Amino acid sequence: MSSINVGKPPEHSRERAKALVLSLQDEICNGLETIDGNSTFQEESWERPEGGGGRSRVMRDGRIFEQGGVNFSEVYGQELPQSIISQRPEAKGHPWFATGTSMVLHPKNPYIPTVHLNYRYFEAGPVWWFGGGADLTPYYPYLSDTLHFHRTHQKACDSINPILHKIFKPWCDEYFFLKHRNETRGVGGIFFDYQDGSGKLYKGQNKDGQAANIAKKIGNLSLGWEDLFSLAKACGKAFLPSYIPIIEKRENHTFGEKERQFQLYRRGRYVEFNLVWDRGTIFGLQTNGRTESILMSLPPLARWEYGFKTTPGTREELLTTVFTKPQDWFNDESLEKICRNYQAFD
Amino acid sequence: MSSINVGKPPEHSRERAKALVLSLQDEICNGLETIDGNSTFQEESWERPEGGGGRSRVMRDGRIFEQGGVNFSEVYGQELPQSIISQRPEAKGHPWFATGTSMVLHPKNPYIPTVHLNYRYFEAGPVWWFGGGADLTPYYPYLSDTLHFHRTHQKACDSINPILHKIFKPWCDEYFFLKHRNETRGVGGIFFDYQDGSGKLYKGQNKDGQAANIAKKIGNLSLGWEDLFSLAKACGKAFLPSYIPIIEKRENHTFGEKERQFQLYRRGRYVEFNLVWDRGTIFGLQTNGRTESILMSLPPLARWEYGFKTTPGTREELLTTVFTKPQDWFNDESLEKICRNYQAFD
Repeated sequence: MSSINVGKPPEHSRERAKALVLSLQDEICNGLETIDGNSTFQEESWERPEGGGGRSRVMRDGRIFEQGGVNFSEVYGQELPQSIISQRPEAKGHPWFATGTSMVLHPKNPYIPTVHLNYRYFEAGPVWWFGGGADLTPYYPYLSDTLHFHRTHQKACDSINPILHKIFKPWCDEYFFLKHRNETRGVGGIFFDYQDGSGKLYKGQNKDGQAANIAKKIGNLSLGWEDLFSLAKACGKAFLPSYIPIIEKRENHTFGEKERQFQLYRRGRYVEFNLVWDRGTIFGLQTNGRTESILMSLPPLARWEYGFKTTPGTREELLTTVFTKPQDWFNDESLEKICRNYQAFD
Repeated sequence: MSSINVGKPPEHSRERAKALVLSLQDEICNGLETIDGNSTFQEESWERPEGGGGRSRVMRDGRIFEQGGVNFSEVYGQELPQSIISQRPEAKGHPWFATGTSMVLHPKNPYIPTVHLNYRYFEAGPVWWFGGGADLTPYYPYLSDTLHFHRTHQKACDSINPILHKIFKPWCDEYFFLKHRNETRGVGGIFFDYQDGSGKLYKGQNKDGQAANIAKKIGNLSLGWEDLFSLAKACGKAFLPSYIPIIEKRENHTFGEKERQFQLYRRGRYVEFNLVWDRGTIFGLQTNGRTESILMSLPPLARWEYGFKTTPGTREELLTTVFTKPQDWFNDESLEKICRNYQAFD
């Protein structure tokens, strides 16, 4: 950890950030193809009329993945949109550059969670920042899977500074939240944005939330460009080890029509979050982004049912009462007992 | 038509508006149950903690309707949200009242279009207004069905004033538009909002659109409360005669897996419109509305497929090239020839 590089980004910053997210895309796609063993990613390169482009990779009808997309993009323009300028006023009037990778995987088996990852880097005039994260959305959850996903990402954050995970974990719960359902999207993971070397760790919109309060207590922490680059790299590289073991543990669970229907119903929530609340998706759709790449995050099939309620005592109820509420997964000792009662610990 | 009642609403205005939308809900539900012949609406009454309530009616797994919802609500509060105040600044600081009925039907057979209707009445301090409309979203369209739906609504508008349909038809095309797809939601119908007796007929957000331009050319038209009440009534009562004959004509069309899959894919567009662009839906979800009633508009099942393209020369292509673009259905003589080529005229 150093505070030496706060301020200007180092030489070749854009090239290095681009190379990082490209290599993450490659590494993750290779890992996913290996575990799937049946389907492969189909790649499509595209250009953005206003500047830049990307390569989208999609897998369909695999052994594990019903559908999965891993995007890379590198885009630039003359002025950032107002929604970002309001968060980063220093960027106003400056040309900008952004590169990132994003991924959503929708497995077939309802015992394997849906998962999302995104890491991105921005430069705009005098400012630059890193953002991103990963979050897990189970249908039939296991506490041990949740703990594994969180621990793996915690270790990655800790490799930069042990303070970070304390903020990025609740930030994730608060960002991936469906206010109209009073539910988290899933069991969370990590999320951070506008990490710009200023020392201010929380830059989200929930000024009274847990992430903001913890960040206030901790105070400033000057992480320079190199630290934050290492953070994005460490978190990105933590993805496969955080997720592949969950697939391996659950891929042979048998399931029937009931589990399938519940999965499709819960996928409806994923659609609702992405289209109603996700700032990146809405911004992209409303400002002439590449629609097909943006909406690669949507599930291949989803359903809605008016007034659906889970039955008390079922695993479906466990999902909605425990696993879609913000939880202190590492420290709340009551969780293990509850989950064991539902055969949902390990 | 009169301009006598411009200004204050008549005595019992709220009760009359409420009775109108309640009777529309009843009439429409009865008509739909009759044509379905198999399933019936299940009713649920609810209260809104901040004031008012409603009754939601849902039909599932019918002979015709895979899912359909018809809502009634009567709600009130101390101050309208900013998104409405910015359109109606006179309402600022005043308590408000709103009542309306809204409906979306998702038929099973891909040859029967999805359809939406909504009529509503607002009062807030010195202002009151009517709004609403109906629009049709076919999957395997027929020009004759489209013409019938439009003609029936045109007649209803004409019964108040023949100018109205010239504005409300393009307003519908412009409102039910997916910018991120460059597509209309379907073949349109009618849409109007903020009809407040001021004489200004177009109050939408597309200041340079066709509806705005036609309204400018026409100039002001003073329709009073009674005229606008009659308009909402006439349009609401036009719904069953605009839609039932389409069902009767298409219900026996056989379809297979290809048509079903295309219907599910296109239903994804319906979800996209409602969650990304529909002001009512977004407003409701972001301001503590009754989520289950708001999202009754979503289809029971929908799918997404990355990079899906229709095959040239197919009826699926006809939908996306002709029927999801704004068209002058009554006057464009080329449409009949195109549709006949696709066996999609009658």
